[in-house]
Amino acid sequence: MNSIKHFKICAFALLLTLLSNTVHAQISNDISHEEALKVLLTEKKAEKLGVLENIAVIDAGANLKAFIRMDGSFIGSIDIAIKKAKTARYFNMASGDLGKISQPGGIVYNIELSNGGLITFPGGVPIKDENGTIIGAIGVSGGTIEEDHDIATVGTNAILQ
Amino acid sequence: MNSIKHFKICAFALLLTLLSNTVHAQISNDISHEEALKVLLTEKKAEKLGVLENIAVIDAGANLKAFIRMDGSFIGSIDIAIKKAKTARYFNMASGDLGKISQPGGIVYNIELSNGGLITFPGGVPIKDENGTIIGAIGVSGGTIEEDHDIATVGTNAILQ
Amino acid sequence: MNSIKHFKICAFALLLTLLSNTVHAQISNDISHEEALKVLLTEKKAEKLGVLENIAVIDAGANLKAFIRMDGSFIGSIDIAIKKAKTARYFNMASGDLGKISQPGGIVYNIELSNGGLITFPGGVPIKDENGTIIGAIGVSGGTIEEDHDIATVGTNAILQ
Amino acid sequence: MNSIKHFKICAFALLLTLLSNTVHAQISNDISHEEALKVLLTEKKAEKLGVLENIAVIDAGANLKAFIRMDGSFIGSIDIAIKKAKTARYFNMASGDLGKISQPGGIVYNIELSNGGLITFPGGVPIKDENGTIIGAIGVSGGTIEEDHDIATVGTNAILQ
Repeated sequence: MNSIKHFKICAFALLLTLLSNTVHAQISNDISHEEALKVLLTEKKAEKLGVLENIAVIDAGANLKAFIRMDGSFIGSIDIAIKKAKTARYFNMASGDLGKISQPGGIVYNIELSNGGLITFPGGVPIKDENGTIIGAIGVSGGTIEEDHDIATVGTNAILQ
Repeated sequence: MNSIKHFKICAFALLLTLLSNTVHAQISNDISHEEALKVLLTEKKAEKLGVLENIAVIDAGANLKAFIRMDGSFIGSIDIAIKKAKTARYFNMASGDLGKISQPGGIVYNIELSNGGLITFPGGVPIKDENGTIIGAIGVSGGTIEEDHDIATVGTNAILQ
Repeated sequence: MNSIKHFKICAFALLLTLLSNTVHAQISNDISHEEALKVLLTEKKAEKLGVLENIAVIDAGANLKAFIRMDGSFIGSIDIAIKKAKTARYFNMASGDLGKISQPGGIVYNIELSNGGLITFPGGVPIKDENGTIIGAIGVSGGTIEEDHDIATVGTNAILQ
Repeated sequence: MNSIKHFKICAFALLLTLLSNTVHAQISNDISHEEALKVLLTEKKAEKLGVLENIAVIDAGANLKAFIRMDGSFIGSIDIAIKKAKTARYFNMASGDLGKISQPGGIVYNIELSNGGLITFPGGVPIKDENGTIIGAIGVSGGTIEEDHDIATVGTNAILQ
């Protein structure tokens, strides 16, 4: 009887381990295109708010995964949305947080000149999976920097729902 | 009599201007982001065929409108999909058609070196509205050139349904 | 007694699963810097052969992971080694294989103009882990294209030993 | 007497020429790839400190000689580490020293815009041989600017041991 109980615990432990394997296989460490599409649909939120946005999603390797430009939004925001997303992944922080320390006198002044051009005002945010692992980033451009950052944050949460 | 002639010329000029305005109104038609999302969903077709694609949609002004990269598809195809779409809109023809005349000895040899780099093999196709007006272009990269072209054609038809 | 035997089998299965987890944690789907250093040391092989090489290693996201330039090797080979590695990862094939179909009349003629410049002659090879998953790529430049390709192949095998 | 004066001038000119030759011979000294690998291994020091760094080594001609990116370190630090090393060699001073005079109002304001982009915060340090001749530079990026500078300094000393 004791050995049977032991066996059950053992089997349960095995099951847990296998499950943990399965979960890992599902989430991987890179954003999927299904998840990226979910993030793009954040534009519905922007539509409701009446903000015209460009939304870029990049993967863990900082390569473009998905993009949408809302009708009537700035053409110049295509590149800015992509660069905000890359900036957020390059340094694993919100683009605006980097901007706080890249000002004249800041500890990384003019860091924007690296990596083919960074954008360090708000609107870029890393995307994390449910374990907190960074699997990509979103960049939003077209509204005010507050609107851009807010919609980027909505986007990062989209894949957790 | 002279004044009548003057009037006729004036009326003709006015007509020309109005016509030119109408033509302009047609040309100014542009793919909407809703339509661009429909085009992106062509990836469902690629999924069924088991082809891993990058799909780019640009507008009438040749600026990026929407993009999706399927999981596991070539990273190098991001830029190629976008360049195929631009090539198709820059010259209002399928990218592969331009490639036929850009070979050594061809009438537009090495045209690929213009515009920051063109891609002139198949996979880029102009997108037309129901009146046949070009409102953008699609670029597909990741499969064989035949698969890329076929899926691009499916994409161009997506907005007509 | 039977249950004890059962328990042992169960424990063994658990151990195997845990080990497989550990192995996974070590290899992940991205080349580690320890592995990249092993690949760099392929230059010892080049030294023996009397070939002066530049060796670049990139990760699964096509971002630079490690690099070494042998004394006296071509300065112009820095960029070529890096571009060969990126080309191999961008399209998951040896750079020379892409070059075979990018010639005039080939199905991807002038593909070299994409992605900021590709190098499609031999010397770039994807790096795979023991499961065959691509975890990065190596690019070698400085010798003949045969020497470059051979040393790149030695490099890809270095992490499996 | 006049001829003696003439001789003295002539001898002095000869001496100057010889000296200038000697100086030139020293300057032409260049970091070897063996030394560059020693510098790269500074990452062991970073590992002990728990800092995730990118380490770049360039030669006397400011061309990339060796590079390593530690697992988990910023992707955006690849370019910054290389640019810090180049900045240190371009002006033969620690990158942070240049940054002190490139701020708004500084004597070389916005010098970062030259040479394809400089990085003028700390982490780039010239590498000298035992005679004090500059033979290359190291650039470190990924930690705080203090950590980057400290590890760069450890790196420059590595070849002297």
